Amino acid sequence: MSKNKPGSAVVVGVGARKGLGAALCRRFGGEGLHVFAAGRSQDKLDLVVEEIMDAGGWATAVVADASSEDDVKSLFSRVASDGPVLEVAAYNAGNNRWAPLLDTDAGLFEDLWRVCCLGGFLVGREAARRMVKKGRGSILFTGATASLRGRPPFAAFASAKAGLRILVQAMAREFGPQGLHVAHVVIDGVIDGDVIRRRMPDYAESKGADGLLDVDAIAEEFWKLHCQHPTTWTQELDLRPFKEAF
Amino acid sequence: MSKNKPGSAVVVGVGARKGLGAALCRRFGGEGLHVFAAGRSQDKLDLVVEEIMDAGGWATAVVADASSEDDVKSLFSRVASDGPVLEVAAYNAGNNRWAPLLDTDAGLFEDLWRVCCLGGFLVGREAARRMVKKGRGSILFTGATASLRGRPPFAAFASAKAGLRILVQAMAREFGPQGLHVAHVVIDGVIDGDVIRRRMPDYAESKGADGLLDVDAIAEEFWKLHCQHPTTWTQELDLRPFKEAF
Amino acid sequence: MSKNKPGSAVVVGVGARKGLGAALCRRFGGEGLHVFAAGRSQDKLDLVVEEIMDAGGWATAVVADASSEDDVKSLFSRVASDGPVLEVAAYNAGNNRWAPLLDTDAGLFEDLWRVCCLGGFLVGREAARRMVKKGRGSILFTGATASLRGRPPFAAFASAKAGLRILVQAMAREFGPQGLHVAHVVIDGVIDGDVIRRRMPDYAESKGADGLLDVDAIAEEFWKLHCQHPTTWTQELDLRPFKEAF
Amino acid sequence: MSKNKPGSAVVVGVGARKGLGAALCRRFGGEGLHVFAAGRSQDKLDLVVEEIMDAGGWATAVVADASSEDDVKSLFSRVASDGPVLEVAAYNAGNNRWAPLLDTDAGLFEDLWRVCCLGGFLVGREAARRMVKKGRGSILFTGATASLRGRPPFAAFASAKAGLRILVQAMAREFGPQGLHVAHVVIDGVIDGDVIRRRMPDYAESKGADGLLDVDAIAEEFWKLHCQHPTTWTQELDLRPFKEAF
Repeated sequence: MSKNKPGSAVVVGVGARKGLGAALCRRFGGEGLHVFAAGRSQDKLDLVVEEIMDAGGWATAVVADASSEDDVKSLFSRVASDGPVLEVAAYNAGNNRWAPLLDTDAGLFEDLWRVCCLGGFLVGREAARRMVKKGRGSILFTGATASLRGRPPFAAFASAKAGLRILVQAMAREFGPQGLHVAHVVIDGVIDGDVIRRRMPDYAESKGADGLLDVDAIAEEFWKLHCQHPTTWTQELDLRPFKEAF
Repeated sequence: MSKNKPGSAVVVGVGARKGLGAALCRRFGGEGLHVFAAGRSQDKLDLVVEEIMDAGGWATAVVADASSEDDVKSLFSRVASDGPVLEVAAYNAGNNRWAPLLDTDAGLFEDLWRVCCLGGFLVGREAARRMVKKGRGSILFTGATASLRGRPPFAAFASAKAGLRILVQAMAREFGPQGLHVAHVVIDGVIDGDVIRRRMPDYAESKGADGLLDVDAIAEEFWKLHCQHPTTWTQELDLRPFKEAF
Repeated sequence: MSKNKPGSAVVVGVGARKGLGAALCRRFGGEGLHVFAAGRSQDKLDLVVEEIMDAGGWATAVVADASSEDDVKSLFSRVASDGPVLEVAAYNAGNNRWAPLLDTDAGLFEDLWRVCCLGGFLVGREAARRMVKKGRGSILFTGATASLRGRPPFAAFASAKAGLRILVQAMAREFGPQGLHVAHVVIDGVIDGDVIRRRMPDYAESKGADGLLDVDAIAEEFWKLHCQHPTTWTQELDLRPFKEAF
Repeated sequence: MSKNKPGSAVVVGVGARKGLGAALCRRFGGEGLHVFAAGRSQDKLDLVVEEIMDAGGWATAVVADASSEDDVKSLFSRVASDGPVLEVAAYNAGNNRWAPLLDTDAGLFEDLWRVCCLGGFLVGREAARRMVKKGRGSILFTGATASLRGRPPFAAFASAKAGLRILVQAMAREFGPQGLHVAHVVIDGVIDGDVIRRRMPDYAESKGADGLLDVDAIAEEFWKLHCQHPTTWTQELDLRPFKEAF
């Protein structure tokens, strides 16, 4: 990647400016990559894009439903036609909802799978499809504690995230030898973002200083994965606050 | 469970007589339980039921699509109305198909999830709904090597099976303290059944004596899980031929 | 194994009559096997042997330090000369002691390794040496929650148990194809035995009915592992009380 | 850490200049840290120290047996008295030897444990003892594929490395909340160093370009672990060449 021909980045699952999706966009944008920020809300995406442009970067907002094959294909078509070589794709969509198992209806179970797992498959596949031609690029996925462990009342969420995790592992094994770095980042704690501050302010406060994962610090770790030397690639990275019990 | 009031068993995913589903039916039927054998083919189910009846047991064939909420609810309604207390439910549906990731379409990815994972959720939930009232019963699931590890060209299958596995783990943690034994059986090898003998006879032959998992031996292990003492319950059981590399 | 030529069993780590080691001896003795009960205290061993003999079984007490190569070799020499074919060996020695890491001296760290891990190696190796000649037999090891997870203040204990666990896994892979069943039993909870009742009676009581693992139930699971069909062998078995959080 | 008061680093397990230990010394030295390079050979250590000094860094060679409590205590006494605040300690000692299990004598089993596991305990403890006073610092350990999986003929090595791995996990849980970053780096492949080039040159060659882990790239990953933001700490990092099957 030269300064003259910067590549592009796709981030799927971009919401509020304080969230992880936005932080990933900023981090990739700060490297000169053309960022395609995809999410469900045009308003939120516009704020993220604006922030990157104001900082001298290059970004495009794309409203898309991550679990819609058409939307995902359309998103990547724009990357291919509008932008330069796809360097990195990050799948950050997800939606943690929970219920006791007997109160979990099939609709909730399926919805979580669509956004947490199916969307990851669609984005991962379309990103890989483009990257294999160049024989390089990184495809990174946001995981959670639940990706590794099923506990009530998160059965449905854990099932979907575990499905994503093993998919990513299989992709890493398939595409690694073709030069693509496919990795899964396990966020083992609570992200300090819009969601927690809005929904559970007291809980967030109770964690104390450095008790929640900083989104820019997470984004830095995603970037470092992208920059790893080809002989030292990480497939699964766990991240947690220093004081987190685990 | 007394001889006078035998309980019932549900086995979902019953196909050919030589398969694991049929073996589970025979094993449970041999204990005097009224077996509800559910599968997609009336003809195959009839043969399984006939075999149990001929041996002096009690069985009912129920044509059902494991991934259909209506079918699963209807199945368990019959168990509740027709039969005695539900003692054990086994989810054995699954369908291993594979493809390189770039050739995997969203339809295949979703189909595998529906039969391997969603169906397990539906059956597990309906079984638990009935069992929690009595505070006892076993809900057992058939897993695979892919449940723990993603490898090409099995990305879609592995994702679905891993989703099932973590769901089962969460259910075990939720329902264990309520007296329900929820367990996952990892079949780490090739089952000696109709599928392998028909599709890949040479491969089956190449494994040699005791190189494939015997379905009756697997069924025995399911039954032993059901019989475990309440202070020594297993959540995940791995099974493989003695000569299997792993 | 016929009644006329019963085999023998070795259990290492036999202490109080209420403990797991003694339960394993009783279980194996009840099958007609000549039991060699090895432990550090002659008095305790005598009580265990006596109980088996009173029940019509056959047993021999062998005072041995499980972590002493000489003692272990001597033990197996007696099995070879005195008794019939070695059918099953169980390694149950272990000693959970704990301390904050900064207060853990090298002596404690080494002691725990010697009894939890080195002893398992010595017993496993000597058992395998005899069994490979016949191409059959089971070698079973008692594991713990700590075998899979390191937590303070159990760093030293967990290190030793994890060392044993992976050793057993490697042995299973090496000796399985030779007909030897090598398995690891993870006791994920508190055993209802002499130790807990003597040292922490209130804690034991607080667990309520069926809250502690019953030693005879555990011994039953060891025996069932030994009896598994050669096409369905388990390498690692987790056992916990139904109400145990995990 | 200011330029005026640079901290110090300890690397245990330093051998040939082309090895990982030496690369870690160079990397830490390049940051201005006073490096204490510990290993068994004065000659080899001198070459490593010389290289760092030539590059304008600061280093001290300390001949030490990592598995000797006296040596390790003496090493850390020197760090405390001679040098500034201990910022990072890396335990890289290890020695992969192998044998079929029946040919593994107790001496080999113990030797591997002493250098792979006991030494890690001693170094980790002494490093933590100093770091807890300041409430910061990183303690990093070199792991291997065998740390997670036991396979013949590496039973003894795997047992020792697994013992180290779980020890490190317990230390991370104990010292994380006190501000110490304790992490385990799983080297899942062959290191391109003196050992492989000397012992198995053909094998090294067969791996092709970027088929072996570059020691400087690994050292970079160690340094990045040390630099992680306190809300995004990694406990276990896997590293492998992009083309490595796993």
